[in-house]
Amino acid sequence: MVIIVDAMGADNSPEAMVTASARAVKELGANIKIVGIEDEIKRVISEKNLSSDGIEIVSAPDVITMHDEPISVRKKTESSLSKALYMLKNGEGDALVSAGNSGALLVGATLIVRCVKGVRRAAMAPVMPVKGGVMMIVDSGANLDCKPEMLEQFAVMGSVYMKNIHGIASPRVGLANNGAEETKGTELYVETHKILKNNGKINFVGNVEGRGLPLGECDVAVTDGFTGNMILKTYEGAGKMFAEEIKNMFKKNIITKIGALFVMGGIKDLRKRMDYKEVGGAMLLGISKPVIKAHGSSDEKAFFCAIRQAVNLVRANVIPQIEEAMKKDTEEETNV
Amino acid sequence: MVIIVDAMGADNSPEAMVTASARAVKELGANIKIVGIEDEIKRVISEKNLSSDGIEIVSAPDVITMHDEPISVRKKTESSLSKALYMLKNGEGDALVSAGNSGALLVGATLIVRCVKGVRRAAMAPVMPVKGGVMMIVDSGANLDCKPEMLEQFAVMGSVYMKNIHGIASPRVGLANNGAEETKGTELYVETHKILKNNGKINFVGNVEGRGLPLGECDVAVTDGFTGNMILKTYEGAGKMFAEEIKNMFKKNIITKIGALFVMGGIKDLRKRMDYKEVGGAMLLGISKPVIKAHGSSDEKAFFCAIRQAVNLVRANVIPQIEEAMKKDTEEETNV
Repeated sequence: MVIIVDAMGADNSPEAMVTASARAVKELGANIKIVGIEDEIKRVISEKNLSSDGIEIVSAPDVITMHDEPISVRKKTESSLSKALYMLKNGEGDALVSAGNSGALLVGATLIVRCVKGVRRAAMAPVMPVKGGVMMIVDSGANLDCKPEMLEQFAVMGSVYMKNIHGIASPRVGLANNGAEETKGTELYVETHKILKNNGKINFVGNVEGRGLPLGECDVAVTDGFTGNMILKTYEGAGKMFAEEIKNMFKKNIITKIGALFVMGGIKDLRKRMDYKEVGGAMLLGISKPVIKAHGSSDEKAFFCAIRQAVNLVRANVIPQIEEAMKKDTEEETNV
Repeated sequence: MVIIVDAMGADNSPEAMVTASARAVKELGANIKIVGIEDEIKRVISEKNLSSDGIEIVSAPDVITMHDEPISVRKKTESSLSKALYMLKNGEGDALVSAGNSGALLVGATLIVRCVKGVRRAAMAPVMPVKGGVMMIVDSGANLDCKPEMLEQFAVMGSVYMKNIHGIASPRVGLANNGAEETKGTELYVETHKILKNNGKINFVGNVEGRGLPLGECDVAVTDGFTGNMILKTYEGAGKMFAEEIKNMFKKNIITKIGALFVMGGIKDLRKRMDYKEVGGAMLLGISKPVIKAHGSSDEKAFFCAIRQAVNLVRANVIPQIEEAMKKDTEEETNV
């Protein structure tokens, strides 16, 4: 298996991407094609004394930064991201992982790699730690304006992912909404509720309020990209805020510092469980090949987990299953 | 000062409302007119051995439940909520507090008490504990479909509130959005950004991402009601989830239980600070008299804090100041 890694354009580029790639070769048995500024990649390998076994460097002199327009992926053909996308399209690797410009990755994946047949729009689908497990938010920012049919596809694709990657036999699909009753929400949500209710291929558990999301009331939270982004980021911010508050609580005085020693193990466990870096990045759900968007501020660990996620996607044959689910979808629509 | 209390229609009705009212008379020096089923109110007073000094019971035999349609406030004229709203309208009290049906309260307040002149739509505006202080979310669910001009009014009214009730000289107004750049968000958000930027009456700090909300990056978070509801509830759910996780961490074994003893004080402080009950309820911002929506599951403490909030609103003359701000707004618009 070959994972294509975009080494540039992220906060910790290319250090984190190079070190994570070396670790991935060793621990996951994957080969890596790492795309970026050759000298910089080589410098990291040499400075960190890494083995370059299983790693092929693909030179790309240009970089798409966080400030570039999404469409720059079409213009900057010598950028690492653009090159990586064409490599994926041409079958020079099985999956692509990037921590760079989200908009450019999404536009590039859609225009260059293209969507699965029948998929209206690809979605950004991160998986978050919640009470009792993990939950996928789909869409978390790729599509600000959605139609009910798009949300339906998100639900179906998200179910395929959670079943295959997280081993949930019948993923509970919830429609993120401002109330439990099926008349709740904007027109988009009222219409989507009806459609999801009548979709026999998913395990629709109805509307889930914001409160129910961190509490694990569904495995796949379906939402438009604007709302999904607010949910995801508010949740991240809340986690950071609570972690700081707890740290301050323990640092207060000598007594509380002693208390901290007694629960050190528990704190570490909790931190590990709540660490979204552990889960990996956000899959671009609906693209015809596996593409993972890692967090822009990914460190080695976060990027390694994103590569691991890509490996799992390939091993579990997730894309063919999404193709299959979408095919049925289209056929059924034709039969109506 | 007279606070009108709707005793019925909430999870802990009328117990919590009656006991909180008795406490409010004693601690806040306010008189209470409590509206509801007379026998039930009298039973609580007698059972709890409360003093009825300063409390006047207003009989209302009917109840609007959580399952009634909002418009039932017009039809059920003998309900506690409907009676309470007419009392407020007729000047039989200075403010109204209810933990009942949110939709009915909003519709009733709008149709019976009416909006401040110039206000397009009233908003539900809770105040949440965040890093370093508190933050108002406006709107949190009253208006699912908004126009830029509505969000602008929310920003102005929210600023008046935070200045007068929380003593923030120049409240930082943030537009909740999926990115910092002013081109981010749906059309509503792009347009609203422009308008807020040009409004000289508020301290607009630009777009604030979900992550920045719990981290205290603004004092007033402006948003449409659907998004605001998702933010508010996700944040509440995250708080509940983290609190449970920490509790489990401490309950793990004898060692961790000992640890808990050392930080007991800190945990209590943190819980108190993060307890949204302490802050009070959500003001219906834009209604021409002070109306507070307390949480449907309010216990005595939460409802007492909501009464205290109503008292503060009256004392600080918040409504006249909102009227003033809206007057200028209308005049300016006329001058254009």
